[in-house]
Order: sequence, then C-alpha cells, then structure tokens
Amino acid sequence: MTHSPHTGRIRGVLSPVVTPFDRELRTDGKRLIQHCRWLLEQDVGLAVFGTNSEANSMSVAEKIALLDTLVAAGVPPERMMPGTGCCAFTDTVELTRRAVQLGCAGVLMLPPFYYKGVSDEGLFRSYAEVIERVGDSRLRIYLYHIPPVAQVPISLPLIERLLKAYPGTVAGIKDSSGDWNNTRAMLEQFQPHGFDVFCGSESFLLATLRGGGVGCITALGNVNPGAIARLARSWQQPDADAQQAALNVVRGIFQQFPVIPALKAAIAHYSDDPAWATVRPPLVELDSVQRDALAQALRSADFAMPGLGTYGPS
Amino acid sequence: MTHSPHTGRIRGVLSPVVTPFDRELRTDGKRLIQHCRWLLEQDVGLAVFGTNSEANSMSVAEKIALLDTLVAAGVPPERMMPGTGCCAFTDTVELTRRAVQLGCAGVLMLPPFYYKGVSDEGLFRSYAEVIERVGDSRLRIYLYHIPPVAQVPISLPLIERLLKAYPGTVAGIKDSSGDWNNTRAMLEQFQPHGFDVFCGSESFLLATLRGGGVGCITALGNVNPGAIARLARSWQQPDADAQQAALNVVRGIFQQFPVIPALKAAIAHYSDDPAWATVRPPLVELDSVQRDALAQALRSADFAMPGLGTYGPS
Repeated sequence: MTHSPHTGRIRGVLSPVVTPFDRELRTDGKRLIQHCRWLLEQDVGLAVFGTNSEANSMSVAEKIALLDTLVAAGVPPERMMPGTGCCAFTDTVELTRRAVQLGCAGVLMLPPFYYKGVSDEGLFRSYAEVIERVGDSRLRIYLYHIPPVAQVPISLPLIERLLKAYPGTVAGIKDSSGDWNNTRAMLEQFQPHGFDVFCGSESFLLATLRGGGVGCITALGNVNPGAIARLARSWQQPDADAQQAALNVVRGIFQQFPVIPALKAAIAHYSDDPAWATVRPPLVELDSVQRDALAQALRSADFAMPGLGTYGPS
Repeated sequence: MTHSPHTGRIRGVLSPVVTPFDRELRTDGKRLIQHCRWLLEQDVGLAVFGTNSEANSMSVAEKIALLDTLVAAGVPPERMMPGTGCCAFTDTVELTRRAVQLGCAGVLMLPPFYYKGVSDEGLFRSYAEVIERVGDSRLRIYLYHIPPVAQVPISLPLIERLLKAYPGTVAGIKDSSGDWNNTRAMLEQFQPHGFDVFCGSESFLLATLRGGGVGCITALGNVNPGAIARLARSWQQPDADAQQAALNVVRGIFQQFPVIPALKAAIAHYSDDPAWATVRPPLVELDSVQRDALAQALRSADFAMPGLGTYGPS
C-alpha cells in the first residue's frame, strides 16, 4: 500500500534516491530517471534529496532542475517526498514551494543545521516561517530527525507544538536517530494523532509497522528495494521475522563501508555502469580494494539487483 | 596596519559583520552599509558572512546581492573577506567567484559541513574543486576552522597538503577552535611559510601577535572594534597585557548571553534603533530580561560604542 486509505498520505517504503553525477560532477538527470523508475517498479517511493542523495552537496537550483526533469519525464510526483530543508529558510521556502507546485506527496524537512545548540523556540520559528511563506494547503511536511548528521535534534516537545499549530500540514517524521526508544515514543505519542512515523532504517521496519507506524525511508532502499517493500506489504505474515533478518544481513554488508559510496558502487557493479560510482566531495568513492570486498561480500550473500538496467554511457 | 607590506595581504582585526534584517526578515543593505562604515572608521576590516553574520541563514543570492550593494556604496573590497563556504561546492564557487570579481581581499571558507566524519581526502577535494573552478590567480582563501559549530575540522595535515598544492591561493586560516594549542601549532608550522594565522577570538589576540600571527577575526569586533584594533596596533607597547585584560572583561559580559542576539541587542541599544535586534530563525532575539541585564552589565563596565550612528528607521 503506497497511500493511506484514510488520509491519502504517502506510506510504505521510500528510498533517499542516490544522485548520479557525470565526470564533471554535474547532476545526471537521465540516470536519475532510470533509477527512480526501477525503484518504483519495486514498489519503493522516492525521497529524492535525502542525506544519501548527497542533497546537501547540491545547490537549490540544481535540485529544482532535477525535480522538474523527473516530473517532466513522467515520474509521478505523488510518489515523491523530496528533501527540502536547507540552512537558510529562504532556500527551504524556494525548494519547498516548487515541490508543492509540482504535486509532490510531501517534503522531508531537515531543521536548519549550521547553528548548534539552538532552542526549540528557534526551530519552531524556522518551520513556521517556511509553512507561512509557502502558504499552500497542499503542503505536507515530514520532519527529518537525524541528530548523528545534522547535530540539531527535533525534540518531542517541538513535535507536539508544531502538530498543534499546523495540524495536517505537519504530517509526520523520519526518525534517523537510530534510537528505537525515540521512535517508539513518537509512535505512542503522535501516531494516534495522525502524525505518520517512518523509521530511518529498514532494520526497524517490522518494529515500526507493529508499533503502528507507516513505513521507512532508508538508504538500503536504493539497492535492496524489492525485499524491503515486500516486508512492508507482508509484515503480518508468519515469515516476517525471517524477512527482517534477511534484510539485516544485506544492511550489515553495506555498513562495513562508507554507505553512500557503497550504494553507488553496488549500482555501478550490478548495472555494469562505472559512472554510477561518482560522488561529490566531501565524499570519496570506494577504492578498488573496497569495491572488490563489497562485491565479494554481496556475492557470498547471493545478493542481486533484479531488473536493474544497464544504463550505459549517457 | 591593515595590509602586510610584504605580501599585500589583509591583516589586523576583522569583524564577522552582523547582518541586519527588517521586520519581514529581509536583508537590510542600508543598515549593513552604515555598520560597515563605522567598523572601518575604527580600523576594523569586514569579514561579512561569517558565523556571527548569520551567513548560513541566507541564500547565496541574498549574499551576492548584499556584497554588490556594499561595493556599489563605496565600501572598499580590499578591506573585505566575505565568508563563502557552503555545503555544496556549486554554491561556494558561485559566491567565491563574485567575491573575487569584486576585488575582495580574500574569502573565508568553511568546509562543507553537512556530512560528518568525512576524510581529509574528501575535504582536500572540496577545496581543490572550488579553487580549480574559480580559476582566478587573485583568489586568496582563508580556511575556516570552527569545529564547535561546523563539526568538521580542518586538520594540520590537510593544511599542509593544501598549502603545498595551492601556495599563494591558500593564504591563511581563521582558527575558531578555542584551543590555543591548535593555534600555536598553526603559528609554528605554517605562519613561517606565508600562511597567515588569524585567531577567532580577541581573547587570543595578544598571544597570536606575539606568536607571529597576523590578527584576529572576532564577533566582538562588531561592538568593541576600537579597543580591539588598538591592541592590534600597539601590542608591543608596555600596556598590552592591560589592554588584553580590558578586552576580556567586555567579552565576558557578552558571553553570558547567546552571542549573536547579544551583539545585535547592544547595537540596537547604543544606536537607539530597535530594528537591529532582529535575527533570523533558528536564532532568537534576547528577551526583555536578557536585554536589560546586558545593558546593565555594559553600563557597569563603562562600556560605550563611540561614534555609532543613530541609524533610524530605514
């Protein structure tokens, strides 16, 4: 199920879609379209411009151009939840406004992440400023809680305040804290009030769905979409725990490497398209030793990426 | 002395100029010009778009527009070192290119700061990408080491590598680590090779100048410019330690409050222009209790901001 029957809101498994770059480090719309189509075929939605998309290594203009390219190519906006949270609210407003105009199902919004130790009052004002300026009843915001990277957390009291001030607009959260106690607290306190909780890793998918959450938005969705989406559909079946265990094995392999370069290396490997391995600095692609070790580990686990196209040179 | 006689490079005291915003949170070029002129009158240079400028709460387009406004108003670019480091190198290139075109003395460049735990190789590539793309021999980069905020440090080996690859272009650093051992290591290892070390707080000004460094770039330059610049000129005089101690007293008062809102509150107070107190979220202006406490503490210390204009409503 990709949209809730009650609210019409997006749910299930989404992938922070990795962004392909060409040799000159320009964004590569053609390969991105192909990868998005492959993910959709596996029943995985598109959280383009997430952390794993190297979103914060792209300018707002580059992200708007990619979003326009995707929609123009027929990639359905109702399956998209682009990341739009930037440090400056003026940037966040510009990108969010475009996502809403294009009909995206929602936006995933980081808090402003440069200044540290800021107050909940300041973060509330940041989100409020964006909501008021976008000023569109179609806007659905999913808060993005990822303290290990952003270093600026979204607290439970902040969620409560936002939800009260902007019900319907503040639609949910992606919890990438890696802390199940935090996810559980959100599920218990806010999910019953129509605040949709996505876990930030498929390792918590089964627990999240059992706890009443709506799905997950996960890096591994880029490489293992079919199996993750299958668990989201069949989590009430007897083999759910076995499915979860199998997902964890694949995740464990990728976690032995820098994850974003490893995701791209796997796509390059299974599509026989080396260009996919390119990352923008400050990230660094896997070296040949790491590449071989990843390929070997995936082979040993009988891992495959069925249906992944050979994209070939653009 | 504002420029080195040997290299022609900028030196002395610079202030990360606080950015005024109007009631709608738009940038206020008129008040910024006035504040820049007042700082220059006190012999303080202009590190516009620093951390204390709320630089990362403004879009690249907003920063370019302000830079154009300043230069068009006759604010001398040879006294300016705008901050240009963004998360995306495409943004950093755009802003840096403009600063160079306008004739700015240098640029203060944060590393890309969203992704954490990145390698020196990745950071080297980030700076190299910008240098190669700007491709202008007039470019002078001052690295910006501020681990408490950016959470992405600039290590000594990274400096060594950048200095070797781009001598002349990599011109120096602002060390806002707050760790004197780190500043001292930079002074000993790199200052003799023409790498200009600025401390990030006037509390280290005397020690930095005695250690061969070229000056400081400090938040307090916004409110206490005359006294800080005087120490930079007269640090070899017998009263230098007493001057340093007096600077530390004023700094201690501001540090009892959130510093950026406190700087703006002080300017608002001494210029009788409440609009100056405005900050962009995620920052929050001082409340009335804090404002009164700050004013009281400054009065008790006989603090003044001589020559600060009454800007009046714009």
